[in-house]
Amino acid sequence: MKPFQKAAIIGTGFIGGSLALDLRKYGLAKEIVGVSRHTKSLERAKKICAIDSGSLDLNIANGADLLIFSAPVNVIIDLAPRLTKIVSKNCIVTDVGSTKESIVKSLERLFPKYIGSHPLAGSEKRGVQYAHKDLFKNSLCILTPTRKSDKRALKLVERIWKKSGAKTILLTPQLHDEILAVISHLPHIAAFSLIASVPDNFLKFASGGLKDTTRIAGSDSELWAQIFLSNRKNLLENIAILQNNISLIKSAIKNNDIQRLSEILEKAKNKRGRIR
Amino acid sequence: MKPFQKAAIIGTGFIGGSLALDLRKYGLAKEIVGVSRHTKSLERAKKICAIDSGSLDLNIANGADLLIFSAPVNVIIDLAPRLTKIVSKNCIVTDVGSTKESIVKSLERLFPKYIGSHPLAGSEKRGVQYAHKDLFKNSLCILTPTRKSDKRALKLVERIWKKSGAKTILLTPQLHDEILAVISHLPHIAAFSLIASVPDNFLKFASGGLKDTTRIAGSDSELWAQIFLSNRKNLLENIAILQNNISLIKSAIKNNDIQRLSEILEKAKNKRGRIR
Repeated sequence: MKPFQKAAIIGTGFIGGSLALDLRKYGLAKEIVGVSRHTKSLERAKKICAIDSGSLDLNIANGADLLIFSAPVNVIIDLAPRLTKIVSKNCIVTDVGSTKESIVKSLERLFPKYIGSHPLAGSEKRGVQYAHKDLFKNSLCILTPTRKSDKRALKLVERIWKKSGAKTILLTPQLHDEILAVISHLPHIAAFSLIASVPDNFLKFASGGLKDTTRIAGSDSELWAQIFLSNRKNLLENIAILQNNISLIKSAIKNNDIQRLSEILEKAKNKRGRIR
Repeated sequence: MKPFQKAAIIGTGFIGGSLALDLRKYGLAKEIVGVSRHTKSLERAKKICAIDSGSLDLNIANGADLLIFSAPVNVIIDLAPRLTKIVSKNCIVTDVGSTKESIVKSLERLFPKYIGSHPLAGSEKRGVQYAHKDLFKNSLCILTPTRKSDKRALKLVERIWKKSGAKTILLTPQLHDEILAVISHLPHIAAFSLIASVPDNFLKFASGGLKDTTRIAGSDSELWAQIFLSNRKNLLENIAILQNNISLIKSAIKNNDIQRLSEILEKAKNKRGRIR
């Protein structure tokens, strides 16, 4: 694979910074530039050699043949139109947004060579200070091309993720959002709600179970509020399913029905066992 | 601390086996015997030198001056009366049951030197094959003496846990159960309900968030059905609180209320940050 001449990362945070490190490590881009709203983030990204140069100004992306949006979905959708005046029509464009239906609809209108991506390598951590090489190694990256997508662009974006060590899979933006509602957004709802249920004076008794089940409640609240709203319909459906499952267990407890309760838990345990 | 002459572990599983290993490592007992319903468990416990000898018959505990019940709460309550005919009135007795109100009420009537314990070092794993030394190191062990408890017995049981590396804290059985309903039993409810909400064909997309939030749903279903029912009143109250917190988030999503949603998540995130 011939390296890109100039890669521009819009958002040099945890994911953007880690991807930049891999672009460099695997020789995928000759020059890497970064844009951030925070000078400090750019300085840190430069210090760890994730980017060659950085700017608060989008114009630094001028001449890029690879453009990667790595910011919250709503921020990407806001910024994207301005980038169309900065990069050429031949620029390969992707993003790492957490939901795909709205962003793909927006960005494929703006960029002829756009392919949506979502690397499932998130973390409750945020910021380039946590960025590291090979973050995506052995993780899954979902690509969401549509019928309108450029075949060569898809091939190139797929190669970037594969070179970074991710396993790639192609899904429609719609199916992506349905799946993510269940496997990522719903667990966050559960974690935030669960920790909210713990009285302050009981926090000191927290052991492994509570810590693990609520780890992702340490995630950025503004980012997650945006993610939840950007996948509102799917998420509301799945919250209802979760509520129903909690009610089933609650009823069995209320009725002292050990047999029914054991059955529900055994089925859940077996399902958990099928996650590798 | 003078070692016990003969320690009897009723239930040589993950917790019982690990405690036996510590009794030996820290010179707390000269002889250690074990009882299990399964010959295989006894053989394994002997193989790792957790116990000197084992039996399916409770009578092996004859002559013990330290008796440790390490089985599900309902099993302990069933077995305990038979042990009163096997050990003397001077035998120090404790248990590691997950809820304390019912077991303390039962066992303190039967054994004059009984003190309830609950080491917060559980795991979704079960069986002596997972037992290891120093399982309790740096963990918290809750002791639940009552006004009727023998002071010397309390001192001795506390010493056992401290020697094993646990930090001990004294709580009433009632407060113990209130706290555990929140910090242990409710997270299990959330985890079992959450994994039950995932369609089978989405399991292959599971990433870190779903894995962590549902790890404890891999726990033994029969054991947890018993735990839930043994702390029924407290648990039902806390399930209602969890349901309410989920509803608050759901409403904010339904109403597209980004400000309210961010507030709820930020408050939860901050609370999570207060867990060490």
